[in-house]
Amino acid sequence: MLDSDLALASDAAQQPGCTIHVCTACRRQRADLPDGYDQPGIGLAAALGKRLAGSGLAVVPVECLAVCRRPCTIALAANGKWTYLIGDLDAGLHLDEIVGAAASFAASANGIVPWKERPASFRKGVVARVPPLPRRQGPDK
Amino acid sequence: MLDSDLALASDAAQQPGCTIHVCTACRRQRADLPDGYDQPGIGLAAALGKRLAGSGLAVVPVECLAVCRRPCTIALAANGKWTYLIGDLDAGLHLDEIVGAAASFAASANGIVPWKERPASFRKGVVARVPPLPRRQGPDK
Repeated sequence: MLDSDLALASDAAQQPGCTIHVCTACRRQRADLPDGYDQPGIGLAAALGKRLAGSGLAVVPVECLAVCRRPCTIALAANGKWTYLIGDLDAGLHLDEIVGAAASFAASANGIVPWKERPASFRKGVVARVPPLPRRQGPDK
Repeated sequence: MLDSDLALASDAAQQPGCTIHVCTACRRQRADLPDGYDQPGIGLAAALGKRLAGSGLAVVPVECLAVCRRPCTIALAANGKWTYLIGDLDAGLHLDEIVGAAASFAASANGIVPWKERPASFRKGVVARVPPLPRRQGPDK
């Protein structure tokens, strides 16, 4: 990720251009552990928080994003933009891709980053997306 | 759904207590059709729009929610509330449940409806959920 990307992303001082919600509840099967699982989202949230300190991108651990079967799962969100849910992420493998994708999301007008500019993990891992709410809404529109 | 539910939901005149995003892109396998599929979200969006006219709940057809494998898929959303993505819905079977669940969502404080109050299709069909953005955000929080 380029410094210029972080500078771009940090323009929105009070309202981050991207909030990364990180699910800390997902369980990953780990036969080598006493409980038989770990919760890798906890480590991913910590690693992202450390990496993005001072960047203007926000990292928010979340108790549960209700995807469950595709740890780690995250959601990229910002006011007025599409929200993207991405699963199958690994802190050890995909930290750079997540940081880069969050910067691209922050720099985008509406949250939609062109397909060819998305990292491989984001192309493969998409769980869902949700459009922003219309700015002016009346009943039944 | 009770009239009192609709009245509750329609309090927010300019800002619906629930916007129902309906994916119109999902393809459902239909061997009896020339193309081999239909797109049932189109009919679901139309049926919900007709049913909820004047209720204060908004229905918005969306080109793609990127879930794809679980038609019909919808998302319930409102400012300051959790967003819920629900799949495996059928206009012929679940219209009443969707309308009731949307009214419960609209009446809730934060979008989280108690589990026992959710219809069966919403308990089984949950794809994901995303928390609202924090109201006051600074960098790195």
